[in-house]
Amino acid sequence: MQAAQYIGGKSFNVVQGSSVAPGPGEVRLAVGYVGICGTDMHIYHGVMDARVAPPQIIGHEMSGTIVEIGAGVEGFAVGENVVVRPLDYCGECPACEAGHSHICHKLKFMGIDSPGAFQNSWTVKARTLHKLPANVSLKQGALIEPLAVAVHDVSRARLKKGERALVIGGGPIGQLVALAARAEGAEVMISEVNDARRAFAETNGIKTVNPLASDIEAVIKDWTQGKGADVVFEVSGVKAAIETMTKVASVRGRICMVAIHSQQPQIDLFQFFWKELELLGARVYEHEDFERAIALVASGDIDVNKFISSVNSLNDIGTAFAGMDGNPTGMKALVQCNSAA
Amino acid sequence: MQAAQYIGGKSFNVVQGSSVAPGPGEVRLAVGYVGICGTDMHIYHGVMDARVAPPQIIGHEMSGTIVEIGAGVEGFAVGENVVVRPLDYCGECPACEAGHSHICHKLKFMGIDSPGAFQNSWTVKARTLHKLPANVSLKQGALIEPLAVAVHDVSRARLKKGERALVIGGGPIGQLVALAARAEGAEVMISEVNDARRAFAETNGIKTVNPLASDIEAVIKDWTQGKGADVVFEVSGVKAAIETMTKVASVRGRICMVAIHSQQPQIDLFQFFWKELELLGARVYEHEDFERAIALVASGDIDVNKFISSVNSLNDIGTAFAGMDGNPTGMKALVQCNSAA
Ligand SMILES: [Zn+2]
Ligand SMILES: [Zn+2]
Ligand SMILES: [Zn+2]
Ligand SMILES: [Zn+2]
Repeated sequence: MQAAQYIGGKSFNVVQGSSVAPGPGEVRLAVGYVGICGTDMHIYHGVMDARVAPPQIIGHEMSGTIVEIGAGVEGFAVGENVVVRPLDYCGECPACEAGHSHICHKLKFMGIDSPGAFQNSWTVKARTLHKLPANVSLKQGALIEPLAVAVHDVSRARLKKGERALVIGGGPIGQLVALAARAEGAEVMISEVNDARRAFAETNGIKTVNPLASDIEAVIKDWTQGKGADVVFEVSGVKAAIETMTKVASVRGRICMVAIHSQQPQIDLFQFFWKELELLGARVYEHEDFERAIALVASGDIDVNKFISSVNSLNDIGTAFAGMDGNPTGMKALVQCNSAA
Repeated sequence: MQAAQYIGGKSFNVVQGSSVAPGPGEVRLAVGYVGICGTDMHIYHGVMDARVAPPQIIGHEMSGTIVEIGAGVEGFAVGENVVVRPLDYCGECPACEAGHSHICHKLKFMGIDSPGAFQNSWTVKARTLHKLPANVSLKQGALIEPLAVAVHDVSRARLKKGERALVIGGGPIGQLVALAARAEGAEVMISEVNDARRAFAETNGIKTVNPLASDIEAVIKDWTQGKGADVVFEVSGVKAAIETMTKVASVRGRICMVAIHSQQPQIDLFQFFWKELELLGARVYEHEDFERAIALVASGDIDVNKFISSVNSLNDIGTAFAGMDGNPTGMKALVQCNSAA
């Protein structure tokens, strides 16, 4: 069995190992495809080495096939295609007790805090699994995790049919948020400075605005007949977006904070008072977000195939990461972890 | 008829005038008592002169008795005691159309943007009125407006029975928020640096913490068995509170922004992501908040009499304002506008 270990300094070692037999409550998967996420790129750049503790097998946006089932696991069979919701929670803390295990006080994110999916064989708890229906391929399956992020954001924002939503930032997550928002019946616009990303959104039928070329406040005012955006998704992580989000939101508008701003930006709290705005933090996903994401792909409502910009073998994982590095036009690079997949 | 005009420079002129006959849809009130609000103190200090345009009759926390009724007004009778919800909205803008007329795009706040209640006789639209039941006095009635602010904040925070709420800031609004939160069945603590304000809270049976003397994070952790506060009301307007609010809130905690922070403070957005926090802006009140405030006083659930720290006549309005200036122990100064009240 092969595994790609991140060893620090933008490098991976592909090593031989032996597969881990599933213990009670666990299953062993033949990994199909694993996507490279923004977080993986952060790890690649070394900024999370203290948390990741290389050498470590990373990767968490995956699909796979059940090859072995541990004691006590019910409802799953060898040969079934699945995806993993990569959250390992304690089940006992106040957050878990309140039903928010995805924000467990002791949450371990699989592929960051524990070994991940960039390997042929991955042994995981059965409670992390979601089944893929027959009409969702393993390639599409690797997009379920980021789509579940987007579905969770839309759910946090309580987006309703007929509302107008502005998505600030047209990277992979922003694009998926836009599609998930449209699937709920919202009218959606993406604000994005990169031409290729705007073009990608437009091929999906999503309106776009370039905030460097247009007065975004005026554009949103016009689009919404003076009301403002019912929902703003801040996915860009840039400072200008923090200023824009409070300006373009409607009275009682909801701002869903998807990007991670570590710098404690200055926020126009007066607008929160003046328009009774809401700011909603959003983190990963819950069980039902994965189910909804799978349903949206299975129904054809969201075409995730368009997001796949490259596929490399596990041996070429370094090529896959290098190809995404500083490349705003690539949406999702996949790593194929089993040649049979 | 007498009216107190704010003329700038911490000064008032009490002038003689003639009462305004109510037009269609209007009523004329004999004003009973008018409370002095934090906003009135801001006006007194001259910082709102551009908006207020002195000479202006200010004042908006009031009670009164109907003395004259204009054409087309139904459901009100001369002699009834009422309070005014001092919001004048357009009824046509996107906010009004969405049912949020209290945040009308063209909202005029009566007593700031148009003449207010510091006079014997006030003529207002009948749609602003709420009736006082017989067991609520005119003195108590003057506290309904600030209590409606507090009720609105509690409503915005979606506070539920059994939740734990921290109120940061123990001025009049913070104290009323604490009582309104307790009336919903929450456990409440006030964080306040001033000894007299903490003592006032404790006479009302509200727990307190002095954030200068104790580690507030540790206090809240202890109080909530490690969970954190379900709701935080930021009423203080000070920078330290902005740091505290994100630290002490629980997973999925709601932070209700009551204070007006005009300085665009730096906010720990990482905590919004990490704990899926919500920030909820709150502005004034809606119709149902006034009704709820009146019911809470009428039922005896909230004793607003305790808040009245002084009563002066309209001729002594200068004394009333001077007495509140830089006086953190005074909760609510009332101005009596009719000797019969
Ligand atoms: Zn990811
Ligand atoms: Zn937990
Ligand atoms: Zn007021
Ligand atoms: Zn309006």
